Amino acid sequence: MTGLDVPSDSQFGVNNLPYGIFSTRGTDKRVGVRIGDEVVDLSVALGDTVFANPSLNPFMAQGRERWVDVRAQIAALATEGDVPAEALHEVGAVTLYLPFEVADYVDFYASEYHAVNMGRLFRPDSEPLMPNWKHLPVGYHGRAGTVVVSGTDIVRPAGQRKTPSQSAPDFGPSRRLDIEAEMGFVVGVPSERGAPITPDQFAEHVFGAVIVNDWSARDIQAWEYVPLGPFLGKSFATSISPWVVPLLALEEARISTPIQDPEPLPYLREGRSWALDIDLAVEWNGHEVSRPPYGAMYWSPAQMLAHTTVNGASSRTGDLFASGTISGPAKEQRGAFIELTWGGTEPVAVGDEMRTFLEDGDEVVISASAPGPGGTRIGFGDVRGRIVGS
Amino acid sequence: MTGLDVPSDSQFGVNNLPYGIFSTRGTDKRVGVRIGDEVVDLSVALGDTVFANPSLNPFMAQGRERWVDVRAQIAALATEGDVPAEALHEVGAVTLYLPFEVADYVDFYASEYHAVNMGRLFRPDSEPLMPNWKHLPVGYHGRAGTVVVSGTDIVRPAGQRKTPSQSAPDFGPSRRLDIEAEMGFVVGVPSERGAPITPDQFAEHVFGAVIVNDWSARDIQAWEYVPLGPFLGKSFATSISPWVVPLLALEEARISTPIQDPEPLPYLREGRSWALDIDLAVEWNGHEVSRPPYGAMYWSPAQMLAHTTVNGASSRTGDLFASGTISGPAKEQRGAFIELTWGGTEPVAVGDEMRTFLEDGDEVVISASAPGPGGTRIGFGDVRGRIVGS
Repeated sequence: MTGLDVPSDSQFGVNNLPYGIFSTRGTDKRVGVRIGDEVVDLSVALGDTVFANPSLNPFMAQGRERWVDVRAQIAALATEGDVPAEALHEVGAVTLYLPFEVADYVDFYASEYHAVNMGRLFRPDSEPLMPNWKHLPVGYHGRAGTVVVSGTDIVRPAGQRKTPSQSAPDFGPSRRLDIEAEMGFVVGVPSERGAPITPDQFAEHVFGAVIVNDWSARDIQAWEYVPLGPFLGKSFATSISPWVVPLLALEEARISTPIQDPEPLPYLREGRSWALDIDLAVEWNGHEVSRPPYGAMYWSPAQMLAHTTVNGASSRTGDLFASGTISGPAKEQRGAFIELTWGGTEPVAVGDEMRTFLEDGDEVVISASAPGPGGTRIGFGDVRGRIVGS
Repeated sequence: MTGLDVPSDSQFGVNNLPYGIFSTRGTDKRVGVRIGDEVVDLSVALGDTVFANPSLNPFMAQGRERWVDVRAQIAALATEGDVPAEALHEVGAVTLYLPFEVADYVDFYASEYHAVNMGRLFRPDSEPLMPNWKHLPVGYHGRAGTVVVSGTDIVRPAGQRKTPSQSAPDFGPSRRLDIEAEMGFVVGVPSERGAPITPDQFAEHVFGAVIVNDWSARDIQAWEYVPLGPFLGKSFATSISPWVVPLLALEEARISTPIQDPEPLPYLREGRSWALDIDLAVEWNGHEVSRPPYGAMYWSPAQMLAHTTVNGASSRTGDLFASGTISGPAKEQRGAFIELTWGGTEPVAVGDEMRTFLEDGDEVVISASAPGPGGTRIGFGDVRGRIVGS
């Protein structure tokens, strides 16, 4: 037996306890929980075969009562120093994988600042916000099969590109490869067809949250997206952070959404809001270029899930839904480079270079943290990816 | 042992051999093949555990060489009368299920007649076809988790509706519930990220085809779809037929697409086209109201898959991609009621009634068949669904 020595300023203290899927040399993938700089092998520490699975889905499907119970067991082990030595691995020595099997992936567009910026850039001659935007969280389905874990190289996508000066599209690698800094939420407990999940049932269904980088090829997207929405401009890859922070760790982060005017229809109204005060930071080749505030989002994640299911659509264990780009009111809070550089017309300083979109070899790291109990911080870790030429 | 007595005019002769998932009283789900009006239990007849699975995915993943081999074994059993009696079940006595686990679901918009009609209805003051339409097969991701098998009741979806005369949306059951008659294709052999599937590799990856009814709530769709495309207007349910007709049964159905002008970019060019001469029929409460011709589609399914993967997106076993509504040039060939009734302004005769959109209790049955060898027909069976009130 051994104790866990977690520095009091760690973002991975016993108030966090995020779950991931890991392996060490020679072992199968299994469920671990991060505490400080250690990964606790739950299949060993708790002796339950649900943690010997290569994804979190079976555990997530067990429901909130079980999530609460396991969390209490882990906290007790960690604080009482009762973790068996063979269950402990240094986080730097393990390999991390996609933490869950993604069922359906939905991406929203829930930041008013982002939606206004994109409207101004893509449709300069019209009202930036569409008439529906303040009535419902606008969203669409993305490609679940290309959600990848942090650290996966991102191959520059090729596709049809057409600039206004061209009479017809040509084909080639994207010249306007971008990021979208987002938060994503994963469903644990499924819902049946015909049984919508109300905002107040959010915590019964949603297991936890990850950081999302929804890589976007703006030139491909701009040409293809009318009238059925983004397709190849987004579907090549979406990266997520490897540690799923349980909703149970985010109680201190709960805040209110901005005032929603007009008042949403009843099915979108929350008792106590699930808006969350999460601070993100975007590093481009090691230089911080933006600090998107999740707390500034217009629509909460509970409203997004309620909207997704209000038509009777079922939800499955592993469904991932993301916020859309997080942008705040200030320029240095914009979560996509197309906004930060105003469509590529205002380059930003990345160290000594002035840059617009991503070049081959560039690396982007998005990190996030939220308030925890007693002045602590709850860390989400980071999601990183490097661009490689196609 | 027993022989199989299949009438020579059956659409399920030995030239077809479609696969499905079935159970009989007291048995688990397993793989069957339909021959005439019998279902052959392949786990018994061929004694291979891959057919004891509750979905076709493991078999579909084995690849084309294996598909050819199994098809030859089944044809030999059937023609030589060598099917063990305990492997035979009357098709009316079995329960049929969703034939495969849907990985990602993509829906296209590949009929020029449909796209023009929808453009005229939704955007009466602009060119009906968007500038991108003849350069690429326009498509978007749908909800994989709500793909259901034929026979599943369709609960009328509720959602936000806003007519032009309303200043704000209200909430309630869709008043403009519609169908979309489509063909769908399922991927058997996956592809890696960064390795696009060329049109000429189509038959190495795609296992077979089904009929699709992409139920659509037009009022919900019209309000929500700008700028990110359809979401709740489609995501409540998509029905597919239970029998997957192998691509190997569709050689005689291969035709050419209409002339594509402008010529598509090289990645969309086919050697021999995978356009298919499939005739559909739509019955509304037992009355035939339309005969959509799949052969009139502008884009072929091989072009759709090539486009889906050209940006480097991977494809998985179970990926389903559908054609979008199939409409021909004539009014009685339109595959959606919004086109057939011109936005609800020109009711059609359904037996003795004049109708526009679907009412509770209505049943829609879409059937399809294609030419087979020697004047035979290859049947897809049908996809049916009844509307129930929410």
